[in-house]
Amino acid sequence: MQKKQNYNIAIAGATGAVGIEMIQTLEKRNFPVGELRLLASARSVGKELEFKGKKIAVQELTQDSFKDIDIALFSAGGDRSKEFADAAVAAGAVVIDNSSAFRMTDGVPLVVPEVNPEAVKNHKGIIANPNCTTIIMLVAVNPIHKINPIKRITVSSYQAVSGAGAMALEELRTQQKDLVEGRQPKAEIFSHVIVNNVFSHDSKILENGFNQEEYKMVQETKKILGDQSIEVAPTCVRVPIERAHSESISLELTQPVDFSAVTKVLNEAPGVKIMDDRQENHFPMPLDVAGKYETFVGRVRADLDRANVLHCFVCGDQLLKGAALNAVQIAELLANDVA
Amino acid sequence: MQKKQNYNIAIAGATGAVGIEMIQTLEKRNFPVGELRLLASARSVGKELEFKGKKIAVQELTQDSFKDIDIALFSAGGDRSKEFADAAVAAGAVVIDNSSAFRMTDGVPLVVPEVNPEAVKNHKGIIANPNCTTIIMLVAVNPIHKINPIKRITVSSYQAVSGAGAMALEELRTQQKDLVEGRQPKAEIFSHVIVNNVFSHDSKILENGFNQEEYKMVQETKKILGDQSIEVAPTCVRVPIERAHSESISLELTQPVDFSAVTKVLNEAPGVKIMDDRQENHFPMPLDVAGKYETFVGRVRADLDRANVLHCFVCGDQLLKGAALNAVQIAELLANDVA
Repeated sequence: MQKKQNYNIAIAGATGAVGIEMIQTLEKRNFPVGELRLLASARSVGKELEFKGKKIAVQELTQDSFKDIDIALFSAGGDRSKEFADAAVAAGAVVIDNSSAFRMTDGVPLVVPEVNPEAVKNHKGIIANPNCTTIIMLVAVNPIHKINPIKRITVSSYQAVSGAGAMALEELRTQQKDLVEGRQPKAEIFSHVIVNNVFSHDSKILENGFNQEEYKMVQETKKILGDQSIEVAPTCVRVPIERAHSESISLELTQPVDFSAVTKVLNEAPGVKIMDDRQENHFPMPLDVAGKYETFVGRVRADLDRANVLHCFVCGDQLLKGAALNAVQIAELLANDVA
Repeated sequence: MQKKQNYNIAIAGATGAVGIEMIQTLEKRNFPVGELRLLASARSVGKELEFKGKKIAVQELTQDSFKDIDIALFSAGGDRSKEFADAAVAAGAVVIDNSSAFRMTDGVPLVVPEVNPEAVKNHKGIIANPNCTTIIMLVAVNPIHKINPIKRITVSSYQAVSGAGAMALEELRTQQKDLVEGRQPKAEIFSHVIVNNVFSHDSKILENGFNQEEYKMVQETKKILGDQSIEVAPTCVRVPIERAHSESISLELTQPVDFSAVTKVLNEAPGVKIMDDRQENHFPMPLDVAGKYETFVGRVRADLDRANVLHCFVCGDQLLKGAALNAVQIAELLANDVA
C-alpha cells in the first residue's frame, strides 16, 4: 500500500459489537486515520458514534460508500461482505474482512499478524480476518509450533455470548435479570436458554458432524499455518458469559516436549501473556482477559503418558484479538508496508 | 448383605447438597427403608428434613450414630468419612462413601453400577462412590469401551457450581443478583468470581500440573475399568451454571470406529440416553439434564483424520448420577444381593 501520512478508513458494520471495538481500537492504537467513515444498514443511519472526541454520523452502506477510502474494515456479516467488498476494491480500497465470506478463497490472505504477517503481501484487494476462536488458539500455539511442529490439535472451547453479536449479549443480560427476578428465561436469539446453561455452538451442523464454527477452526488453521497435514479436532461450546473465549487445548507435537523451551518461546511471543500460577490456582479466565489485547496462556503441563503431548488453557478477548484488534493490526501491517 | 424386608439407612451429611438428594432419591426409587437416620454436624442438629411425608430430625454425627444401621451413606467430606466410617463398619453397617477418602484404597471397591457392579461383592465394609465427573464420563464411554477398548480419553469439563456444595451454589446466585442490580460481585467460597466467568477447577494443583479433580478422573477411571494402561488426559473447568456437568470427550480406540455399532450399544446401555439432533442443533445440555437420572450423550462423530477416534459431548446431573443416585444404586445392589 502506498505510504501516506493518514489513511481514510471505512468501517462497514460500524454499529455492531465488533464495529464499535474497531472504532475504539483505531483510536487507542493511534492509527493514522484521515477520514473515518462509519457505514451500516439504513436503520442505523442518523446514529452518531464517537471517535477521538468527535461525533461521526453513521451513513448507509451502499455501492458508492467507498470513494477515497484507503482501507475498508468489514464486519457486517458474510452477505454484506459479498455484496459490497468488490465495490470497495473497485474504489481503490483494501478490504479487511472480518466475516467468513472470503477466508477460504484462493488468493485471499488469511492473516493473524503474530503468525503469518508475510501473507498480507499477496493480497489482491481483500484480506480476511480469521474466525475468533482460531485466532486466539493460533496466537498461543504458533510459538510452540515453530520449535516443535504440531501434528494434531484437540480443542474444546468455552465461548462467550458476545461472539454471537450485540443482541445475543443483550439476551444473556435479559435472561440473568429474568432469573434473578423470578421469571422464566426465554430464548429468542439463541435456540436454547443460555443462562445457567452451556450448549454446543449455535452454528449449523455439517454433513461430517462438526458444526461450522468447528470446521472453520479446522480449515483456517491449515491455511494460516500453511500445512494441510495438521490435524484439528475441535468441539465448540457456548457458555453463559459476556466476553472472552477460553479454549482447553491438547497438542500432539512431532518431538518430545521440552517445557523450558516452550516457556521461553511463549514468554517471548508477541501477543502472548503467560498466566500460570499453580500456587494461587490463577490461570487464564475471561474476567481477567476481557478488554485485553493479549492472548493469555496457562495450565501448561506435560501429558501423563505421552512425551510429545502438551496441554494448556488459553483465553482471549474474542471481540478484540479475535476480531477488531486483529483487523486493525492487519491495517497497521499495510500502513507500515511491513508485509 | 443379608436379605431383609427393610434396611435401616443412615445418611452422614444429610443437610448438604448431596445429602438432600440422597433422601429424595431413596424416596423416589422406593428403596426399602426401615429407619432413616439423618446425621450432620452439631450446628445442623434440630433441623428437620422430610422423607415420605414425614419430618425427621437431624442428629449429630458421632461414633455412636450407627447402632442397628444396615447401610450408611456418607457425604460429609473426606475428613468426616475418615473419622466415622470405621465406627459405622464396626456397628455392622456397610458404608457407601461419596468422598474421595477411600476411593483409591486397596480392598475398597469403586463402583459405578452400570459399569462394574460385580466389584461390590469384594467389599470389606466400605464401598466408594467415584468422583462425579468420572461417573458421568464412564457411564457414557464404557458401552463403547466394551466393543472397542479405549486406549486414551481426552476430556474437557464444564462443571456446575453445585458440585462444590450448597454454599458455592448460593454464591453463584448472590453474584447473579449483584450483577443484575449493579453491584460488584465478590468471591468468598471460590477464589475467583464465577458469574460471567469460567475458571480452572478450584481443587489443588498437584506436582504433575494436573489438579486434584483431573487426577481423580485419571486414577479412578483406571481402577473402575480395571485397566492401568488406559490413558486419561483431563482438563476440569468450572462454569457459571447451577447444576449438571458437561464433558467434551475424545476417545482413541483400539480399532477403527464402527458408528452403527456405537449407536446400537449406546441405545441399549443402561443409564444412557442419546440426545443427538443435528437438524435442530439439540445436544446434551445442563438445562435439559438437571434432575434426570440418565447420562445424556450427543455430538457423536467421527474424527476428520483418524479412523480410531470418536468425539462426543456428555452431560449428567452430578448431584444425582454423579453422587446421590450412584450411591443409592450401590445400596440397591447390596439389597438385591445382585453383586
